[in-house]
Amino acid sequence: MLLLSKKDIQKVFTMKDAIKANKMAFQLLVDNACQVPLRTVIPAPKYDGSFLFMPGYVEKMDTAALKIVNIFPKNIDNGLATAPSQVLLIDGKTGITQALLNGTYLTQLRTGAATGVAFDLLGKSNCKIGALIGTGSQGEKQLEAMLTVRNLDQIRVFDIDPKRTETFAQKMKSKFNDFCTEIIPVKTSDEALDNADLIVTVTPSTRPVFDGRKVKEGATISCVGAYQHHMQEMDPRILPRASKIYFDSKEAVLSESGDITIPLKEGIITEDDFTGDLGDLINGNLIGRENDDEIIIFETVGVAAQDLVTAKNIYLKALKEGIGTKWDEET
Amino acid sequence: MLLLSKKDIQKVFTMKDAIKANKMAFQLLVDNACQVPLRTVIPAPKYDGSFLFMPGYVEKMDTAALKIVNIFPKNIDNGLATAPSQVLLIDGKTGITQALLNGTYLTQLRTGAATGVAFDLLGKSNCKIGALIGTGSQGEKQLEAMLTVRNLDQIRVFDIDPKRTETFAQKMKSKFNDFCTEIIPVKTSDEALDNADLIVTVTPSTRPVFDGRKVKEGATISCVGAYQHHMQEMDPRILPRASKIYFDSKEAVLSESGDITIPLKEGIITEDDFTGDLGDLINGNLIGRENDDEIIIFETVGVAAQDLVTAKNIYLKALKEGIGTKWDEET
Repeated sequence: MLLLSKKDIQKVFTMKDAIKANKMAFQLLVDNACQVPLRTVIPAPKYDGSFLFMPGYVEKMDTAALKIVNIFPKNIDNGLATAPSQVLLIDGKTGITQALLNGTYLTQLRTGAATGVAFDLLGKSNCKIGALIGTGSQGEKQLEAMLTVRNLDQIRVFDIDPKRTETFAQKMKSKFNDFCTEIIPVKTSDEALDNADLIVTVTPSTRPVFDGRKVKEGATISCVGAYQHHMQEMDPRILPRASKIYFDSKEAVLSESGDITIPLKEGIITEDDFTGDLGDLINGNLIGRENDDEIIIFETVGVAAQDLVTAKNIYLKALKEGIGTKWDEET
Repeated sequence: MLLLSKKDIQKVFTMKDAIKANKMAFQLLVDNACQVPLRTVIPAPKYDGSFLFMPGYVEKMDTAALKIVNIFPKNIDNGLATAPSQVLLIDGKTGITQALLNGTYLTQLRTGAATGVAFDLLGKSNCKIGALIGTGSQGEKQLEAMLTVRNLDQIRVFDIDPKRTETFAQKMKSKFNDFCTEIIPVKTSDEALDNADLIVTVTPSTRPVFDGRKVKEGATISCVGAYQHHMQEMDPRILPRASKIYFDSKEAVLSESGDITIPLKEGIITEDDFTGDLGDLINGNLIGRENDDEIIIFETVGVAAQDLVTAKNIYLKALKEGIGTKWDEET
């Protein structure tokens, strides 16, 4: 079995690799090539936690995978990860587990890559300004995705905690220095939005985190944070302004995300306003951006196909480059 | 995370330890202290395989676990394990995965230990002869369990393949030399049964593997192999002769094992003939052997509580003794 830590994955797998893998994942999804049984959730009320087990299988890739994510919000009080995670990668021909991967990092990577795919396919070709709202554990890879798909002059970073915003922006600046993109902390979401071509929201907010009226024409927005019905970071006022509304999986979004289910319930939009899944854009069944004035929205909650395809591609690259720790289950 | 290979587990965890752990598991089971969601099965028809994911949670032990077992019978043609397995052990307070264990060995161990618990609690105190029918991957630990709980003069080993029987007996003889118990291969199941006090059947047979009329009075029988409805290794003629019929879990046995469901359907027994779960014997709610003439049957299909409690106890001992490979998911 090959053990792949965060560092190992970083050594072999770039955001570009991840975006490529996630394009494949979104295609598999719309082709119904990824079998995803209902995930198993075991609540642990004693500690306000829950254990989540999410299996998936893609026959045509001869690959199965299981992602474990255990949500324990109180861990933050003890300086521990609030959603520790692993991914097990299984050879679909033999049932033998091939690899164990750091699932926390893999999740950040594939979640960033989803935004990367959306911006790559739906963003204007000429984007200058990016905006990132939310500087939590998913923030870095969202920012990296923006940097990877468009040659930006500036990214503005905003979070409700100014100190955290400052620290994050500083860290990103030194980390992504090679991109020659200015990364600056700002004090309001209005400032972040001002003239932004690419906008990412990645917060656990239950109230909109930006003013939908202030999004400029031609912008592409990726909303990443709202993975439960009561969560809503997208200002619903942006929805009637958008000419296209894309999803990673419409089915998954409608069963999980308040960003879309709340405005649906309130009658701000109807299902007729939805364009469809990104996979169908990649497959050529749907059209993408038609001009530089359209506002396009991408809403993502994350799907098992992303974990599986990303894990498999990391594993193959690591194997080829001799990266990772080999562990023998017998000796 | 602590990685525990087969060798690591062997270093720290004896059959005695396993029997102790499984007693605890059976108690937790009847106390409804082990939460076991429905297992997830993904069929892989292309390779005649299936992926099984079996989670469990015991709040009062602050422990969750997931066992993965992938059944790929055709692996045997390539010299690979036909049911490769892992167990992940998760801290119930934080959701952090503490250990990854060789699930194939753990399964053999806990399955043997179930027989050990049954024989320990239900066998006559003075047992001389043991019989083992079946020499597959589970055989060794079944034999070790017999050796561990009773001071036997002889164990007879039988399998339909005489060569395999011979090889297995030879291997066991040298492995368990310290027990001063004669281990001999025999050519018929009648020979194995003759005067046997403890009998184990552990085969994938769909037809009874012994003659129920030839079981001597006072014998205790553990039937381990029949984990599906079409499987039947126990001769149903033994059932009316038995004064007590115990299970690891009556519910699990009735939903899985042909050993019991076929005779039930045929009217050879009724549910009134069932004594109950071993956990209730351990808890003092049911009575065990009352004299040396009773024939007592134990039917086991295996339950998630066994995996969880066994894994946890292995982990704790390994941690204490500094055994296993530490793996850092970050670096």
